[in-house]
Amino acid sequence: MIIGDTIVAAATPFGYSGIAVIRLSGPEATKIINQISTQNSFNNRVATIASLKNLSGETVDQALVTCFFSPESYTGEDVVEISTHGNPAIINEVLGVATDLGARLAEPGEFTYRAFINGKMDLVQAEAVAALIHSKSEESAKIQQKILSGDLSLVLNQTRSSLINLISTLEHQMDISEEEASGELGVSFVENIDGLQTQTQSLLGTFEMGQLFNRGISVVISGAPNVGKSSLFNLIANTDRAIVSDQPGTTRDVIDVEVIISGVPVRFFDTAGIRETGDAIEKEGVGRALEKKLSADIVVLVYDDPSQKPIIRDENNKTIFVLNKLDLHHNRDNKGVIHISCVENEGVGRLFEKIKQTINIKKASADTTYLSTERQFASLSACSRFLQSSKNLLSVQPVDLELVAFELCEALGSIDVLLGKTTAEDIINNIFKSLCVGK
Amino acid sequence: MIIGDTIVAAATPFGYSGIAVIRLSGPEATKIINQISTQNSFNNRVATIASLKNLSGETVDQALVTCFFSPESYTGEDVVEISTHGNPAIINEVLGVATDLGARLAEPGEFTYRAFINGKMDLVQAEAVAALIHSKSEESAKIQQKILSGDLSLVLNQTRSSLINLISTLEHQMDISEEEASGELGVSFVENIDGLQTQTQSLLGTFEMGQLFNRGISVVISGAPNVGKSSLFNLIANTDRAIVSDQPGTTRDVIDVEVIISGVPVRFFDTAGIRETGDAIEKEGVGRALEKKLSADIVVLVYDDPSQKPIIRDENNKTIFVLNKLDLHHNRDNKGVIHISCVENEGVGRLFEKIKQTINIKKASADTTYLSTERQFASLSACSRFLQSSKNLLSVQPVDLELVAFELCEALGSIDVLLGKTTAEDIINNIFKSLCVGK
Repeated sequence: MIIGDTIVAAATPFGYSGIAVIRLSGPEATKIINQISTQNSFNNRVATIASLKNLSGETVDQALVTCFFSPESYTGEDVVEISTHGNPAIINEVLGVATDLGARLAEPGEFTYRAFINGKMDLVQAEAVAALIHSKSEESAKIQQKILSGDLSLVLNQTRSSLINLISTLEHQMDISEEEASGELGVSFVENIDGLQTQTQSLLGTFEMGQLFNRGISVVISGAPNVGKSSLFNLIANTDRAIVSDQPGTTRDVIDVEVIISGVPVRFFDTAGIRETGDAIEKEGVGRALEKKLSADIVVLVYDDPSQKPIIRDENNKTIFVLNKLDLHHNRDNKGVIHISCVENEGVGRLFEKIKQTINIKKASADTTYLSTERQFASLSACSRFLQSSKNLLSVQPVDLELVAFELCEALGSIDVLLGKTTAEDIINNIFKSLCVGK
Repeated sequence: MIIGDTIVAAATPFGYSGIAVIRLSGPEATKIINQISTQNSFNNRVATIASLKNLSGETVDQALVTCFFSPESYTGEDVVEISTHGNPAIINEVLGVATDLGARLAEPGEFTYRAFINGKMDLVQAEAVAALIHSKSEESAKIQQKILSGDLSLVLNQTRSSLINLISTLEHQMDISEEEASGELGVSFVENIDGLQTQTQSLLGTFEMGQLFNRGISVVISGAPNVGKSSLFNLIANTDRAIVSDQPGTTRDVIDVEVIISGVPVRFFDTAGIRETGDAIEKEGVGRALEKKLSADIVVLVYDDPSQKPIIRDENNKTIFVLNKLDLHHNRDNKGVIHISCVENEGVGRLFEKIKQTINIKKASADTTYLSTERQFASLSACSRFLQSSKNLLSVQPVDLELVAFELCEALGSIDVLLGKTTAEDIINNIFKSLCVGK
């Protein structure tokens, strides 16, 4: 991404609403707002009413304008926030005037990229901005909020300082060794590495839960025809915890729905809807849904005859048995099976509870910093491996200080990659592209 | 709507975006933000970073908070704008904390209602807020912006003052008459009424265009099977002026699309898609679309054989003949007929031009204040009628001053209704309910 020029974007979703916010950032930001608005000077951070004009001098909107002068702004550059009426035609015209006056339409994540480049946040925090915005539940938002506010960065920077100290100690020892033929490292040196290793392992241990909250799980509803798969799906879709489906087959046949269970987004897929379609376009969607099934975390296997418990066919998935039509059966004592009655709207709560147990969903702890991205996990795993290697090398006498130093430098390198101090450009670009335009 | 308590709402659309804005208004607004945020005092209009906490003390988000102290705010009350990360879970949690602390979720338009009640704007301006937000084009937004900024209110208030002066003159004259047996009204009195009448008529004359920009028109594509109705519809839907359809039959079969032609939203309906469906749910949508056809402003009648120009069946609509498959015909000289070729993507521009002529779409004039709602038109029509009656009464000798005064008071009354000075509560409520939540 280019830096140094002035960028502009809408920071709120397009739509008809009370307010829309348009953001400018860069050296020309204040010059541009002075040209667009009737007001020709703004105080730092003071929200000021101004009429916005287009280049023909026509009034586009009455807006609330707030300038944030460099360096005390989100991006570190001069930033202008323009709060207009929430209307796409107005937003488009303001964006048009701003670009006519020299601003460039921002790419996704470009404001946060500039915040990163200008040292306002590190790469772990920038990642958290994207994850925070896309959080599906209050729990996952809080996990990202902790990272954004610097909790993980603090731990990483402490690890980094410790590693630098250890490497300095080694280097000092190597200088002495050359003179004195043998070098001694204190017990505390190994203990320090042990401490770092323990801490890193403990962070890595949070990843499974962090990812659960961040990415969620998928559940496929399966079973023979006419046992009540769609009825169950509809019951689930109508719980007050269900949120919009973003992968409908058609408007009529919603084939997936997401439910937040203890803060974890759980996406249910209805395979009944899948099989009954003949339409060509829909079939493509169905194909994708069936693929989803293969990678589902849980298969809910529905049946309606207590004497005919089905056999598990998908060995890759965890399976939950659901016996439907509870209202028709006398024998309610099928062990490990969830009994439901779609007709009487009974048992969905039990199914949700069983899912929590099956995936081991625990309550998110407010005191824990959770890793939640593959990148975080991969970097810290590497760090942990290098720490382990250095420990192994330290246990072989005589100790080869140079090799130990090499491993610790590698460990340091993996932390630096994580913080964005030394990270390949394409990785950085990918992180910011996952953000919205205007952020 | 209730006033006096503290209301809260999201002022930006729900969704995943850079920023979301939540608004509080009322006597408890600043107290609530002090309780929610780590910051415990805010300066007027100064955008301040603050951590938002829930009632358990957990950080919900880092936000930008701006307080607007009464009376210098949108509503006239204390207003707090909270700019969070654009995430529904965060928005919901902040709304939840605010309501736990005593705020009430605002009804649609309630912020603007309070602005109206507190004298920040009149009813014509409040109507313009709703219309501005729902504008489909830059032209229609500008028309509403002019009304919001007070252009129409100025004219109405001048008319109002003139009417009050005329009525005072009459009353004065009636006092004299009682003493002196006969009263004389100068020529200027009648001229004044004439002037008001002319001005009112001129405003009424803007309504047709104003409504065109505000509400737009509907065009139904009709014709025999297989002449290319859907191909034409698809060509139209793919022009860069086409915006989202909000009335799709299903995801696959979009049956209407809106195109902005010279600032006027023109909604095209594809009757081909309509007839080919057999699905029960879809049929209901189709029924609605067919009703639309009966009330369409224009029917585009498509045919593909130059020798078989169809006969107009819908006498209620204006009809445009479109001869498709231009590429196959040698004779291109069918008078008054638009020649297109869907295969070669040719002629859509000509069709748009013909629609402009048929509906008489002119360029919006930046100097004109356009009426755009039925309510404005009805009130000013009434005003005009009362002015005319008073003129008629003045031409009958001896003049009955009391009757003239009565008519002028009625004219004044219709202006007062328009400005919201004396308007029935249910009418006022309807106006504000057409607004978004958070405005």
